[in-house]
Amino acid sequence: MIYEGKSVIELGERAALAQTVSHFKPVSSTLVGSGDDSAVISVSDSRFVVTTDSMVEGRDFRLEFSSGFDLGYKAAATNLADVAAMGAQPISLVVALLIKPDTKVSWLEDFAKGLQAALDELAPSAAIVGGDLAIANQIVVAVTAHGDLQGKPPVLRTGAKPGDQLAVAGTLGKAAAGLQLILHPDQTLAASYPELVGTQLRPTPPVALALSASFASAMMDVSDSLALDAHRLAEASGVMIRINKKDLLGYVAVLEQAAQSITARDGSVVDPLDWVLFGGEDHSFLASFPAGEVPKGFRVIGSIEAGRGVFLDELSLPAQGWDSVSS
Amino acid sequence: MIYEGKSVIELGERAALAQTVSHFKPVSSTLVGSGDDSAVISVSDSRFVVTTDSMVEGRDFRLEFSSGFDLGYKAAATNLADVAAMGAQPISLVVALLIKPDTKVSWLEDFAKGLQAALDELAPSAAIVGGDLAIANQIVVAVTAHGDLQGKPPVLRTGAKPGDQLAVAGTLGKAAAGLQLILHPDQTLAASYPELVGTQLRPTPPVALALSASFASAMMDVSDSLALDAHRLAEASGVMIRINKKDLLGYVAVLEQAAQSITARDGSVVDPLDWVLFGGEDHSFLASFPAGEVPKGFRVIGSIEAGRGVFLDELSLPAQGWDSVSS
Repeated sequence: MIYEGKSVIELGERAALAQTVSHFKPVSSTLVGSGDDSAVISVSDSRFVVTTDSMVEGRDFRLEFSSGFDLGYKAAATNLADVAAMGAQPISLVVALLIKPDTKVSWLEDFAKGLQAALDELAPSAAIVGGDLAIANQIVVAVTAHGDLQGKPPVLRTGAKPGDQLAVAGTLGKAAAGLQLILHPDQTLAASYPELVGTQLRPTPPVALALSASFASAMMDVSDSLALDAHRLAEASGVMIRINKKDLLGYVAVLEQAAQSITARDGSVVDPLDWVLFGGEDHSFLASFPAGEVPKGFRVIGSIEAGRGVFLDELSLPAQGWDSVSS
Repeated sequence: MIYEGKSVIELGERAALAQTVSHFKPVSSTLVGSGDDSAVISVSDSRFVVTTDSMVEGRDFRLEFSSGFDLGYKAAATNLADVAAMGAQPISLVVALLIKPDTKVSWLEDFAKGLQAALDELAPSAAIVGGDLAIANQIVVAVTAHGDLQGKPPVLRTGAKPGDQLAVAGTLGKAAAGLQLILHPDQTLAASYPELVGTQLRPTPPVALALSASFASAMMDVSDSLALDAHRLAEASGVMIRINKKDLLGYVAVLEQAAQSITARDGSVVDPLDWVLFGGEDHSFLASFPAGEVPKGFRVIGSIEAGRGVFLDELSLPAQGWDSVSS
């Protein structure tokens, strides 16, 4: 391997990109892939879905915790979740990647493998079809993902109706717990909870479940927190959302031990319910369904009512969570 | 204006974004715009075209030369060119923007106005349909643009055939001349050549001309230099390209005076032919057409022949131009 240990700049952009692109698998919807001015993608009908999301070193991740693989995986997963939350099958991603002058080709390859692994595991119908590589002071990943609605109407945030049930597919609070463990001064803590740390570093939104729920009255990706995203859903639909605390106990239970471990190390009191309510980055799906029509894999956590705001039982729940600009 | 002089962080992401988005105009192909997990876009047939390109502060632009408006305009224009170079009508753009902690709301608004102005002037069929705003150490703009092939096959780089004529729509060398003027220590120079400086800061790819040439055997956006991009076209099509020096004299002539002005100031000898051959960022269109079928607005500069490589008359032309990683 002639590039072993070399930086991207030393090897040259073209050779480094060729090495990177070799890790990507083609899919049949890619009519023209990378190498021309643009890619050409086929869809089932005359519509496509598009979303973009970026991750910035030092704010969204740190290189001492996230490998290139982790970062590629997470960048793909978070965007796949936004496509699937519309009820659309992911088909193509383009990736703008900024690396630093000393970034190694091996890191770039690891990043590419992470991107492809997320597609393999979460959305094998999708492929990386283009990208852009440049140099900056920080590593930045900006992914744009596309989906195919396959003849169905998109699932918007605006359709929740009083009488609907509120349900979740995926985890809640694990990514936030994982983050707190990773950032803890006692670094042995993180090693004790690989699943929580893994959810933070490589979230696995249940894309297939979201696609099976395309008859939902409303659906969205829970990226910033259950509380904050429920507020967004309630506001977009013009309804009130009531979350049942008892329905969250299962999510809380799997975090209890990690919370207790943190308390045992440093005496700080951690309420795992806070992770479940206000923690972001699980990239689960929050959806509303007509009563009795909640599909398999979704867990009911509350109900849609007439009114405004979000309540946990009888308590008004603040719209608190991750904010990409002010956090 | 309550936000006058405030930074985006002071005003808050949500309010700043609302202020920004107010400058964008809707188009009919946007079925679902920003505000949900993804946008939904309609196309004429079951295909869409997608490209992504990013610009990094300090490498691709400097804030002392480029206003927010300039930057928004250029980010849109360069991506529109990549869509149009496929023969596709631009329909939608998503924009990932990284700003700095002290970036003002007024700068963000100016950026948004520049994006919209580029769409208004170059591709009124297109709209900004989504985006992502985050904080970083440098300003970074990553745009992904989409196009509608309107039932036609895409125009690739691979179709140039011996016997075709080589032609250009748009300017050559003006952006490179503009860059040299901007960077010159004598800042009065730039003020004397507003058109050249304007081409560097706000390139205007002739999108409509590219769309009128969708029967071209091959077409591409000239982003890195005529020489380098001609090499890419020749290689992709497996042909030799011969550029006639006499056909470039018109492009050279309009740059003569600026070159002489630089020589008069600092004694350095500038050959304007170098700008035409090796300067990037004009975002013109380089295309090959069957002999006699060159459309109005394209100027013949050479021919496609059997063989390999790129020649200027009888001289082999090096594949020299802008490289986003090593430059």
